[in-house]
Amino acid sequence: MRHTISILVENKFGVLTRVAGLFSGRGYNIDTLNVGPTQDPTASRMTIVTRGDDATVEQILKQLNKLPEALEVTDFHEGEFVDRELVLVKVGVNSKTRADVMQITDIFRAKIVDVQPKSLTVEVTGTEEKVGKFLELMKPYGIRELTRTGKVALSRS
Amino acid sequence: MRHTISILVENKFGVLTRVAGLFSGRGYNIDTLNVGPTQDPTASRMTIVTRGDDATVEQILKQLNKLPEALEVTDFHEGEFVDRELVLVKVGVNSKTRADVMQITDIFRAKIVDVQPKSLTVEVTGTEEKVGKFLELMKPYGIRELTRTGKVALSRS
Repeated sequence: MRHTISILVENKFGVLTRVAGLFSGRGYNIDTLNVGPTQDPTASRMTIVTRGDDATVEQILKQLNKLPEALEVTDFHEGEFVDRELVLVKVGVNSKTRADVMQITDIFRAKIVDVQPKSLTVEVTGTEEKVGKFLELMKPYGIRELTRTGKVALSRS
Repeated sequence: MRHTISILVENKFGVLTRVAGLFSGRGYNIDTLNVGPTQDPTASRMTIVTRGDDATVEQILKQLNKLPEALEVTDFHEGEFVDRELVLVKVGVNSKTRADVMQITDIFRAKIVDVQPKSLTVEVTGTEEKVGKFLELMKPYGIRELTRTGKVALSRS
């Protein structure tokens, strides 16, 4: 089962290394991870998507809660949170396929952020499912490059 | 000076820890970092925003290039790349301020992704500058929670 874990951490030196090491040292998978500033200049928020059975994830959470730099650890459950990710994807196009790619981009309310003679770069945001669907549709045109932020999530409460 | 570094890495165990450790071990700052899958199931892409003088960043790049799991390391220079980030922000509202927040959201082509009696959660994407401007405008209403993905970037070429 996949889990989305959000950790508010103190901006202390090496905290990212410690969190990453906690996962790799115990053989836990990280699907995506991101870390960025918050409204509080002394704290950052990390979001990690990981896989594992309930016992494994419980262990991860216990270890994270033990970190002195972790101010708050949340394991989000289905329906309790809003999550989004952003993907930039460079798709190969020619004079015949450009309109098709633009049309699909439009349907997904995605944005074309760069145009080159043989490629379009598209910004698409949404849930993992929506973004995944868009990328599936782009595949036949040729995905040249791709970068995704990984999920960020906030509770609904 | 701030640098945006993109690293294509092999999906090998502990690569995130090694990259993070390389920064913390040498006293380099990480402003934001993210890592996610690419179109190639054996590789992930990391984007790191760091600060430092040219000599420091040159050293970072040299160290990254030495990592056996690093398939490609790019230090993006002004104008050569498209970059975007995504922020989810929960803003406090009441019956008087809700319309104002909705209006600003509209101007920034941001999206309201959750509504609660006393808050709105907004998804905003764009360059760091645009996102920063939006957050500045939200401050007076009360930012309850905030999570940002950090930049992702793709070359224009």
